[in-house]
Amino acid sequence: MISSDYFNFKVLKQSTMSNARLGLIHTPHGDVRTPAFIFCGTKANVKGITPFQLHEAGTQIILSNTYHLLLQPGIDVLRKAGGLQKFTGWNAPMFTDSGGFQIFCLGYGSVCSEIKGIKSAPTRKTLLTVTEEGATFRSYLNGNKILLTPELSIQAQIAFGADIIVCLDECAPHHTSKMFTAEAMMRSKRWASRCLAELERSGTGKQALSAVIQGGIYGDLRRESADFANKNAFDCFAIGGSLGITKQQMFDITQMTCEMLDRKRHVHLLGIGGIPDIFNGVKCGIDTFDCVSPTRIARHGIALIKASEKEQSEYGLTKTSEQDPSTKKANNININHSRFVGDTNPISFNCDCYTCKTVSRSYIHHLFRADEMLGGQLISLHNIRFMNKLMEDIRSAIANDTLDKCQSEYLD
Amino acid sequence: MISSDYFNFKVLKQSTMSNARLGLIHTPHGDVRTPAFIFCGTKANVKGITPFQLHEAGTQIILSNTYHLLLQPGIDVLRKAGGLQKFTGWNAPMFTDSGGFQIFCLGYGSVCSEIKGIKSAPTRKTLLTVTEEGATFRSYLNGNKILLTPELSIQAQIAFGADIIVCLDECAPHHTSKMFTAEAMMRSKRWASRCLAELERSGTGKQALSAVIQGGIYGDLRRESADFANKNAFDCFAIGGSLGITKQQMFDITQMTCEMLDRKRHVHLLGIGGIPDIFNGVKCGIDTFDCVSPTRIARHGIALIKASEKEQSEYGLTKTSEQDPSTKKANNININHSRFVGDTNPISFNCDCYTCKTVSRSYIHHLFRADEMLGGQLISLHNIRFMNKLMEDIRSAIANDTLDKCQSEYLD
Repeated sequence: MISSDYFNFKVLKQSTMSNARLGLIHTPHGDVRTPAFIFCGTKANVKGITPFQLHEAGTQIILSNTYHLLLQPGIDVLRKAGGLQKFTGWNAPMFTDSGGFQIFCLGYGSVCSEIKGIKSAPTRKTLLTVTEEGATFRSYLNGNKILLTPELSIQAQIAFGADIIVCLDECAPHHTSKMFTAEAMMRSKRWASRCLAELERSGTGKQALSAVIQGGIYGDLRRESADFANKNAFDCFAIGGSLGITKQQMFDITQMTCEMLDRKRHVHLLGIGGIPDIFNGVKCGIDTFDCVSPTRIARHGIALIKASEKEQSEYGLTKTSEQDPSTKKANNININHSRFVGDTNPISFNCDCYTCKTVSRSYIHHLFRADEMLGGQLISLHNIRFMNKLMEDIRSAIANDTLDKCQSEYLD
Repeated sequence: MISSDYFNFKVLKQSTMSNARLGLIHTPHGDVRTPAFIFCGTKANVKGITPFQLHEAGTQIILSNTYHLLLQPGIDVLRKAGGLQKFTGWNAPMFTDSGGFQIFCLGYGSVCSEIKGIKSAPTRKTLLTVTEEGATFRSYLNGNKILLTPELSIQAQIAFGADIIVCLDECAPHHTSKMFTAEAMMRSKRWASRCLAELERSGTGKQALSAVIQGGIYGDLRRESADFANKNAFDCFAIGGSLGITKQQMFDITQMTCEMLDRKRHVHLLGIGGIPDIFNGVKCGIDTFDCVSPTRIARHGIALIKASEKEQSEYGLTKTSEQDPSTKKANNININHSRFVGDTNPISFNCDCYTCKTVSRSYIHHLFRADEMLGGQLISLHNIRFMNKLMEDIRSAIANDTLDKCQSEYLD
């Protein structure tokens, strides 16, 4: 493991009740207290929210997607800008993924939904070929063919300049055979070695590189992937690939994989961020999470609350929470519901976010009825603060050995 | 004229070079230094911008539209909320119009474009009848018939609770005869008397009522309208109706009308806010302006700059500025222009707005290419600050008798 003045990870406390732990990631752009949530700024911005507003809501770290940035604005623009932090005005820790997930998600049609156990119609396939050299796909913007190699992914991420970057991996969908999953995992190992070499050759020494742990739902494949990552000089780990189709499977595979990994390094769980998933992940030993959900649902009028608040909230159940039995106890209200027409209460009675301190549910309901983008922004501000407060509460609970109590406050 | 502890207007300095003046409007929600720009928050929000961001950009006062608020969220919701300031979280001076302009704009198809001298296709007509009682129109939301009377307009504006409210008037389009314009003006006088009576009967005593000066392009009709307003207890004046079809006509009619009005009261110019128009209006004695333009063009990628900045800005001319010979010297850059792909400069070199302090043209260009709403928000923040700074500079220039110098800095 590489630990330097630029990047290091310290475990501040290991819980004795579970694998949960408190940590501190040190980066050139500041520190991140873990467990932490990483907000998605896919195309170099968190939709509708300024860096100032992110800071005010207690945000520590955001991510951008290499796949999207490669296509728009491209490597040259970001290199000229001096990297993502200067480009976006977010002068704090950042994370970029490798681009692999999006290529294979679009390529295999439904992998990202499958990983999260969501049934959905296949989307347009844009992945053309996968060879040892790399993955060739068509730009969704102009139809150009692009060959993404491990080297190109790292060169792009060097230009983007995030503090934590990720190896290009082949993300196998759930519906494939164990053989296919094994081959993708083994190719991902070879690509990861090339990524490490490229970063050593071309990098600044200021970026941490994360190996992606693949192997799908198969314990022996996860073991092989984890052993490889443990033995090589990756700064941190990101658990990727299929985590099965049920919440229990997701929990089991996360738990199993975490236990295979060198516990001195930071562990990220890719693309997962439901509130029950976060509590489960934290107990498995996950340090950071990312998910588009908090800001995406906000733009559709869904505001996060503690389940224990629902009695006072006269909430409107959302389709998602109605459909998914694991979230029967709703962690949200749907502000589009007509109950909120004249509701002069804030979204949450206990929230210190700008939105809750400033306006009522009635006002935000009006903004959604009137098709005003400010409605989605105000709920985004709330949901961002909510997720940051959730992680603050989780950190306090780990410090005080009260994680189960914290969990029941949020979920029961 | 009504002057009270709640509302009063003081002329702080009368220029000797023109009719320009410095003033102070005192309202229950704070003071407004004039000349000032009133930003449009049509549906109880300035699109994409929070009240905090408005304050940070130096905004003194915003307006909302009675027509839109009547339809959504309606009087009851706003009354229950305790008025617009509590509803929106904008705890500062507000202005509401009467709803008349929108009814007649939609009703006559093209009146609002005509007033501003813009040729456009007629829009769908929703005005059904105009009688002595009031104007009947169809809701654009649900097709319901609504009769807007002077009394209903005032009752709505009492519930909305803005500091400055406006009499319902009949806004005659330019293409009508002098006879039609005269009849509309005379009906507007009768409606204004009913508005004054309704406010005295039902009001809180904390809202200032503005008479609308009608009469189109006809001096004798403007005189009759102004005399009526001068003689009655309106707290302030708003110049409405057709100002002709050329910039010169707009200037001449504004000048003429201003000179007819009691100079002790505050004078607003309805719906006008181009930068040349503001300089002309200020010299005529206009105290406040409103226009959707600064935030509307922002959402299309147009950022306001001083014309004197254009050499350093490598600006992209917009269609508007190319088409309108009176604004040949562009006061804006179109960030969509490919020149800005890698331009690491801020929108404006001399601007202290959040956007210019935080991000580059290249970044905002990227956001527009990527269809991210944050792009429009960041330019809105800039344009709002630009307009507030323009008005600050105009006030300093009036104080120092350097208004022509200030004008040439912005326009030449």
